[in-house]
Order: sequence, then C-alpha cells, then structure tokens
Amino acid sequence: MTAASPFSRRLDLTGTVELFHGGGGRAMAQLIAELFRKHLRDVQDGDAALLPPVSGRLAVTTDASVVAPRWFPGGDMGSLAINGTVNDLAMRGARPLALTVSMVLEEGLPLQELERLAQSLAASAAAVPVPVVAGDTKVVERGKGDGVFLSVAGVGVVPDGVTLEASAIRPGDRVLVSGTLGDHGMTLMSLREGLGFAGDLQSDCQPLVDLVASLLAVSGVRCLRDPTRGGLAATVNELAWAGACGFLLDETAIPIRPTVHAAGELLGIDPLTVANEGKLVAIVAPDAADRLLTVARAHPKGRDAALIGTVTDDPRHFVQLKTELGGTRILDWLMGEQLPRIC
Amino acid sequence: MTAASPFSRRLDLTGTVELFHGGGGRAMAQLIAELFRKHLRDVQDGDAALLPPVSGRLAVTTDASVVAPRWFPGGDMGSLAINGTVNDLAMRGARPLALTVSMVLEEGLPLQELERLAQSLAASAAAVPVPVVAGDTKVVERGKGDGVFLSVAGVGVVPDGVTLEASAIRPGDRVLVSGTLGDHGMTLMSLREGLGFAGDLQSDCQPLVDLVASLLAVSGVRCLRDPTRGGLAATVNELAWAGACGFLLDETAIPIRPTVHAAGELLGIDPLTVANEGKLVAIVAPDAADRLLTVARAHPKGRDAALIGTVTDDPRHFVQLKTELGGTRILDWLMGEQLPRIC
Repeated sequence: MTAASPFSRRLDLTGTVELFHGGGGRAMAQLIAELFRKHLRDVQDGDAALLPPVSGRLAVTTDASVVAPRWFPGGDMGSLAINGTVNDLAMRGARPLALTVSMVLEEGLPLQELERLAQSLAASAAAVPVPVVAGDTKVVERGKGDGVFLSVAGVGVVPDGVTLEASAIRPGDRVLVSGTLGDHGMTLMSLREGLGFAGDLQSDCQPLVDLVASLLAVSGVRCLRDPTRGGLAATVNELAWAGACGFLLDETAIPIRPTVHAAGELLGIDPLTVANEGKLVAIVAPDAADRLLTVARAHPKGRDAALIGTVTDDPRHFVQLKTELGGTRILDWLMGEQLPRIC
Repeated sequence: MTAASPFSRRLDLTGTVELFHGGGGRAMAQLIAELFRKHLRDVQDGDAALLPPVSGRLAVTTDASVVAPRWFPGGDMGSLAINGTVNDLAMRGARPLALTVSMVLEEGLPLQELERLAQSLAASAAAVPVPVVAGDTKVVERGKGDGVFLSVAGVGVVPDGVTLEASAIRPGDRVLVSGTLGDHGMTLMSLREGLGFAGDLQSDCQPLVDLVASLLAVSGVRCLRDPTRGGLAATVNELAWAGACGFLLDETAIPIRPTVHAAGELLGIDPLTVANEGKLVAIVAPDAADRLLTVARAHPKGRDAALIGTVTDDPRHFVQLKTELGGTRILDWLMGEQLPRIC
C-alpha cells in the first residue's frame, strides 16, 4: 500500500486561518502543500532552498508589506511585496536570482483571500521573472495582527563592471525620473478617503529590472533609487546626504498625472512626498543625460521619463525646488507620512 | 557650514514607536540611524546591500518570529530569529554570507525595548558570525500587531561537494540527534503557564554552523534538519515522506532533560512534539554512525548527542517508536501545536 499524501482529506478552502496552521504540524504542512505550493511552484522542501551555481557580487535586500487595504487599483499586497524587493535589487543593477516570502497571518483570515495572495505573489514573481524558492508561515491570535503581513527578501547578482553608488554623484549631474510621480501613494490615500475619482487613479506597482537593464546598457548612470515611502522628497534628500551634495529641481519638469495632482489638492498632500512603486530616480552624468532620457522614453516603463533637475554643490545638503511661479523653495522630507501603511 | 546630521536633535529613547516612524520620512531615517545602525553596524545605505564576490551554490531561506513572550530564559525574539535562519542555512551545509531583518512594529512599542532587540540581533549575528546587511521597518496602528514581528532572511554558500538531500536517505541509515530535545518549547510553555520550575528550564537557542562543519568534515551525513516547530515528531515524519521511507526510533535512547520531562508530564505535552532551536537531526550512513556520534559529542554543542533509531523501508512512511515498556507505537505529527507562537 502506498499513500499518495500524508493528509487524509483535502484542505477546505472555504475555511479560515487557524492557530494550528502555524504550529509546525500536519495542518501547516497541508496549508503549504495544498495552498502555497499550488501557486508558488518553485518553493523547495527542507530548511533552506538551494540555487544553481553563481559567480559574482551579490545584492541582498528585504521589504515588509503591511499595506492597507490589501487590494487596490493597479496592485495588491502580493505584487507590492514582490516588486518592492525586486526593485531594491534593480536599483543596485542586480539581476534577481531568488526571493523568499515570510508571512505573519492573523487567525480568522479567509483561506480564499490567502490563496488570492499566493496567486498574486506567484504571478508577480513570474512577471519579473524570478523564482520564489523558500517561505515561512506564522499565525498569531485574532486581534494580534491585521490579516496578513508579508516580508519578501531577495538575492541578486550584480554584473561585473556595474557600480551604482551615491558617492559617485558630482555637482552638475542631472536627475532623471522614469515617469509620473505620486501614483501609488495617491491611489491608496484616495481609496481610503473614499474619493470619487479613485477609479481614475492606479498604482504604478511594477518591476523595473528590464528598464534598469536598458539604462545600464548606456554609460553615465551614477546611482539609482526607487522613490517609495516618503516619495521623491525623501529619496532626493537622502541622496543629498549620501552623496554630500545638494539638488535643484524644476517643479514644472516633474511629471505628475492631472488626477494625481487633483487628488493631492483635495487631500492636502504633496504628490512629491508619497510612495511610488514602479518608478526610479537616476542621477546621471551631464553628457549622458539626453541619451539616457531617449533610452528611457523608448522603454514601455519609461515613456513619461523626464530630466527634472541638477546636482548642486551644497554643504547644507538642501533640496531646492524652482517653483512654477519662478521662485525657489526647500523641498524638505516630512517627519513621517500623512497616512500609515502605504506599502 | 557643514551639517553633521540631518536631524536637529537626537532620538528620545524614552519614547515609543509612533506611526510616523514607518513613514519613510525623517523620523524613520533617524530611527534607523540612531537606534538600528548603532548596533547593527553592517547595515548598508541604499536600496539593497552589496556583498563581496562569491562563487558557488547559494542557499537562501527566511524565518519569521512571532514568539510570545519576547524575552525568555536562554534567548529572546532576536536570538531566535537570527538562529532560526542561520540554522536553516546550516542544515543545507551552507556557510552564512549575510542576513536581512524586516520588522513590523506596533505603534506604542517602547523604543528601549526595540533597542534591546536590536542589541540582541547584533550580538546573535556576531556570534555566528554573519553580518546583518539590510533591513526594513514598517509600523502598524496600535491593536493591529503585537509589539514586534521579525522576519530574518539569509543567504549562504554551499561548499563544493556538499549535498544533503532527503532523497539520499536509505533503509538501514541511522538517526543522530545532537542533544536533548524539547528544551525550547517546554521553556516557553512553562513560562506562559507560570510553572514554578521555569527557572530550571532554558531555551537551547544557538547557532549550529560550527557543529555542522565538524560533522561534514566526516563523510556519511545524508541529510540534516533542525527540529523546530512540531519538534522531533514533525521533522521525522516530514523526512519519512521526503525520503520515501519509514523510521523506527528507540524512546529510551532519545535524550530529554529530567526537568523538560517533568514539565511535559505536568502540562500534558510530549517533549517530542515541541520546538527545539539549537538541535539538529542527522540521517547518517550506518557505517559512519559511530564515528559521527564521537565527533558530535566532542563538540560543545553536541555533548549530549545520541543515536536514536534507524530508517526503515516502509511504503506507509510511518514513524514508529519502541517504547520504554518494549512495545511499539506510532509517533504521529500533531495537527498543530498545543500553544501558538513558540517561535
């Protein structure tokens, strides 16, 4: 007699996550086998996953996702978690090799929603493409979590010759953004506030590995960052400190969708301070700027790319914004963000 | 004029975690700079961390920690999270290269406790040793979390020639455990239940990289697992399915501390079904078993090692236990665990 499976009957997907699903016993093994593995087919057995041989410099990163709500126009917690980590690797110029997913589930989460999340994780990883090779699942009591929190970690390999460091930034360098800013953050905020035009807003959540590869095929990129939490304002201020420089940005050159702008006006939120999940900021050498802009615009993920400013020699590390009216103001980073759990 | 830091005054450690600490702005940057980086000195700036060149097969894994309480005899959430991931890598024979730490913090967590946790993470990583190179911090509203949840991911390199796979298990192989079983789980359960002898119990939380290196220097190890959640019972049952075999274990040969045994009797919990956090199970070739036992016992982390049973040819994949009374019973894995959040 040969048993085909250690489980006497199939997992009932109309049920909910229970504490015993996190206990390391038969119920957890069944959840992994019949829900996660069904979609995340690259997850390996055993304590750690084994990857094929590789040679070179590795990039590693991790990103937690606590976004609320978990489902929104243009993405969901699964795509956000995958793309967040993949884009962190891409900002180093790394080719993603593998991802891991760790989940903290709250007792009572419907298994059907968990399955939708597993599907989204699988589809988002396949779109990069990168395999999800290992995972971990823990369950906490009702009222001690909020449905699900995800952490995605990633490892990638950086091609020889690629170096992207803030220390390479020089006064006179140009600032390129790959597209419109504020889409993700303003979509989430409009959704939470119940604004009517939420239907016209959509998260920009997407992987940027291919766009980065196109840019790096041209020389002149000093440094890449993805302006997630805190938006462009936080990213450029961090770069000013990391690169020991300042910035002068041109407000009229910064691409922002009219609906994002309108939502920002209504909500009293500056689109430059909210998260993007599928855009990059590139600091580029002055003589390469126009060429890189052309390359970015030729890529489907860089159609709205723009050169938005220059690096200045500023020991105060200020980020200045030349406004539409011709004046100049400081673009500071905020203490925090207006609304929590944007990603 | 040169500013030394972008923060106008230092972080007040008598405060608590606030939502703005997760917002991607100045407050988050300050939390990272003045609390995390103070202890976790290998964390790099930028989106992903860069590692030195490496060549070989990589092992990757992730482990979430939701343990309650966070502080217990023999360890804490920080050491548990680090060692959980490091040991998963070690079970593949991998030398750990780098770790990442992702945190979901609940609004209201005292910053002093968060700093203690950062200290524990740093000390535990240094003890391996392995650098923590990247991190992520998210904050959720009061009542939507439980203080802190950690996810630690790790990447390691597997030395050439090392293969540890359940598929290598053969009938007649022997089962070696590196020490006493049930210590971690029974410590947590006794602590939660307020049992008086909790002081005599202590988690076995420790990294096993060095012990594994000693064992792998001798040939004959087929496969390694660490019996965490679900304990020895879950691990051996999983191996029976993964290795398409059965097991016959000798109850009298399984090392269990008298206090762990006594706590188990009082709580009505079998020490073989609770988590260990610093022990391994090795399936070894019959002719190497005695040699490997000697090597394990010569190592400080393997002093109580024992050979506890043999692999059987069993198409039902049963794990049988020869009891003290001379009978035989099935050692099943439980549906879940008796108490949640053991790790």
